Amino acid sequence: MREWSLTPSPSFSLTVRLELKNRAGALAEVTRAIAEVGGNLGQISLIERNLKTVKRELQIDASSTEHAEQIVRAIKALKDVQVLHVSDRTFDLHRGGKIHIQNRIAITSSADLAMAYTPGVGRICKAIEEAPEKVFSLTIKGNSVAIVTDGSAVLGLGNLGPEAALPVMEGKAMLFKQFADIDAFPICLATQETEEIIQTVKNIIPAFGGVNLEDIAAPRCFEIERRLQEELDVPIFHDDQHGTAIVTMAALINSLKLVDKEMTKIKVVINGAGAAGIAIARLLQQAQCENIILCDSRGIISKGRADLNEEKRAFAVAQEGSLADALVGADVFIGVSAPGILTPEMVKTMAAQPIVFAMANPIPEVQPELIQDIAAVVATGRSDYPNQINNVLAFPGVFRGALDCRAIAFTTDMYLQAAKAIAGLVPPSVLDREHIIPSVFDPRVVPTVAAAVQQAAREAGVARI
Amino acid sequence: MREWSLTPSPSFSLTVRLELKNRAGALAEVTRAIAEVGGNLGQISLIERNLKTVKRELQIDASSTEHAEQIVRAIKALKDVQVLHVSDRTFDLHRGGKIHIQNRIAITSSADLAMAYTPGVGRICKAIEEAPEKVFSLTIKGNSVAIVTDGSAVLGLGNLGPEAALPVMEGKAMLFKQFADIDAFPICLATQETEEIIQTVKNIIPAFGGVNLEDIAAPRCFEIERRLQEELDVPIFHDDQHGTAIVTMAALINSLKLVDKEMTKIKVVINGAGAAGIAIARLLQQAQCENIILCDSRGIISKGRADLNEEKRAFAVAQEGSLADALVGADVFIGVSAPGILTPEMVKTMAAQPIVFAMANPIPEVQPELIQDIAAVVATGRSDYPNQINNVLAFPGVFRGALDCRAIAFTTDMYLQAAKAIAGLVPPSVLDREHIIPSVFDPRVVPTVAAAVQQAAREAGVARI
Repeated sequence: MREWSLTPSPSFSLTVRLELKNRAGALAEVTRAIAEVGGNLGQISLIERNLKTVKRELQIDASSTEHAEQIVRAIKALKDVQVLHVSDRTFDLHRGGKIHIQNRIAITSSADLAMAYTPGVGRICKAIEEAPEKVFSLTIKGNSVAIVTDGSAVLGLGNLGPEAALPVMEGKAMLFKQFADIDAFPICLATQETEEIIQTVKNIIPAFGGVNLEDIAAPRCFEIERRLQEELDVPIFHDDQHGTAIVTMAALINSLKLVDKEMTKIKVVINGAGAAGIAIARLLQQAQCENIILCDSRGIISKGRADLNEEKRAFAVAQEGSLADALVGADVFIGVSAPGILTPEMVKTMAAQPIVFAMANPIPEVQPELIQDIAAVVATGRSDYPNQINNVLAFPGVFRGALDCRAIAFTTDMYLQAAKAIAGLVPPSVLDREHIIPSVFDPRVVPTVAAAVQQAAREAGVARI
Repeated sequence: MREWSLTPSPSFSLTVRLELKNRAGALAEVTRAIAEVGGNLGQISLIERNLKTVKRELQIDASSTEHAEQIVRAIKALKDVQVLHVSDRTFDLHRGGKIHIQNRIAITSSADLAMAYTPGVGRICKAIEEAPEKVFSLTIKGNSVAIVTDGSAVLGLGNLGPEAALPVMEGKAMLFKQFADIDAFPICLATQETEEIIQTVKNIIPAFGGVNLEDIAAPRCFEIERRLQEELDVPIFHDDQHGTAIVTMAALINSLKLVDKEMTKIKVVINGAGAAGIAIARLLQQAQCENIILCDSRGIISKGRADLNEEKRAFAVAQEGSLADALVGADVFIGVSAPGILTPEMVKTMAAQPIVFAMANPIPEVQPELIQDIAAVVATGRSDYPNQINNVLAFPGVFRGALDCRAIAFTTDMYLQAAKAIAGLVPPSVLDREHIIPSVFDPRVVPTVAAAVQQAAREAGVARI
């Protein structure tokens, strides 16, 4: 896959340190040169200044690696400018890893050692041996989540394996911490066998209060999730399925308000029949949306096809044809598939006021700029466009609620209540085509979702406390 | 096992909040009452004072749970004293867990999200996919250690299972962080099958740069360590074996200087033929100490016995009999066994200037007070006595060295060099019977051990960089 994107993004961000002549207009020449090649300037810091020269550090967003190189070339071509240092901000952030362990107390005396380690810790061990439920209150288990992947479906990038998946899992752990104060740790598996994945997760479960499955390919993800939830007594969440489905549902609830359509009457086309697509279709059915056409890379999931797994077959329809055929007259397109697969022409064939959720990562099914005058609402999975359908709106609060009531499992109703809680955070006065869901930085999201999930857990009888 | 100990220890420490009359002598009555029942007063804080009353908070070390209760009863028996609150400091420290995740940067904007998570993180994934060795520099792998246990031999407490072992593993992770800035995470296994443990560790290895095996019973620990080191390309360390052996060796090197005996001429009795005992015996042999008698719960490991596993058989001797028989004329007793098993009478039968390392945890083979006038040198595994033979002198520096050179394995020579490095930190001017090893809080320990281990790794050809 090529590294490209139509708009400059912080994911291709540079730090460039320059030495300029100390004269009027020197900086202006630099900023003009950057603008001329399409770079997006962020922070400009003054590092040092004397009578002759000025050192400055610039943060510049580019749209690709090639574009970043082009920007640096443009700066170097200026006379009276010396490029002292260029670094890639995304790589800088990842060097040495993005998460670390933090100790509850500093261990600086033998009294600390005697309490935190031997012999004092032996008293805690015995307390847990005598009353096993105390493991939740006296260890990390009450607040810890295993982020489990086999690296088979990493972002939109495919089967990269467990090592190349690790940066994503570390990022996920950061989000758990930042948004819900949950201690999550990456478990990247050197196996892609269903039974072995299940057995390994069961073997490591004692230290974890929950499991977040991540970037595991369909259809094995369905079996792994189902079996783990049956065989373990902590909540199991496949984020690519349910996180995506919850936030998509929240966005759809609010989008339908904008175009004044009803959930029970719309026609929805879902492109992508993997983990996310299947889970979205299921949650839509739960919300009484019945007219759903699911498509995969071979087109419409139709009853006549012989190549369907169990999960796909449950959604097979009579119609046959391509994604373009499916879209004619549809009210909603939900893409969880591949970059650039949706054309403006296809959107033009949809019903009036079409809703387009183009959520492929990192590059959406259609660049939003291309359909901004055609669609009534456009959402993507990206943080650099409006209406980001981002799982971070769901999973932190969902796990916060489940951990706080020591849930033994998740139920579909817990997901539905989470979706409604998210949608409810956008009041009519704020709701418009660029604000269909709350910001991931809205501090009300996690407590609101957590409360809804806890309530649903209690009603379903899956809460321990 | 009873919770007892002859001396008050921070592991049985209380926080007691009191309200006293504001008059001369009120506090003196409290401190006298505590002293009379043998409590050990630490910090005394003034919380609040008015004309009539004073509120104070006292930290008091007890020697057991019963002793703690006795102290509280003694305070409550005083007139004019109200006990407002009593809490157990060791339990307070453990509530909610002792380690947490810390993020490299706060995620407070969509630019942060775009770099730390999607889409920016995809560039890091692809970089690792293209050049797999970059996983060490661009993720936590370069600094992370899995602390793996099956809970089968937890401290001196036995087979408590993985949940009850978790507080120990969290404590271990704190030590890794505090002493060597290593990010270690507990992997507590819900299986005690050798093959399944091996397979599980192999399955989760992608996120870890090393493995510390902990509290896994002998003899399966030997097979697990050997196989993992053969089948994985990161260093595997069974701390109960090698951590103990390294520090014991360091302590013995310096103790022999004090009593003016030579390693090649001494008779050593090791009581306990599990993981630690076998590893100590092996490291002694490596250091040219040949006169070793190993004992287990049935007495001397003698050639006539039919109940020996492979590891024990390698050390079998002609002599038969009990531990007491073995000790007659011995220069050194090394206990890695059970509480109270060594009597002062047995120590009196040893050679002149006997060296006693009583390292059972949490309660030593003999309380040091009982033999302080008989033995030339006494060491224990406890942090509240002098000469603590504490693995924390070894494993942080050993792993720091191994991670820094990206070692693919440990070698016996790396352990030997670590032991010599630790011993070398006690200069002749400091060395005496209560100072045979450096303090675990000596800041020179980790860098010195790490440097020795790195050097040995390079010489053995197991260093990647």
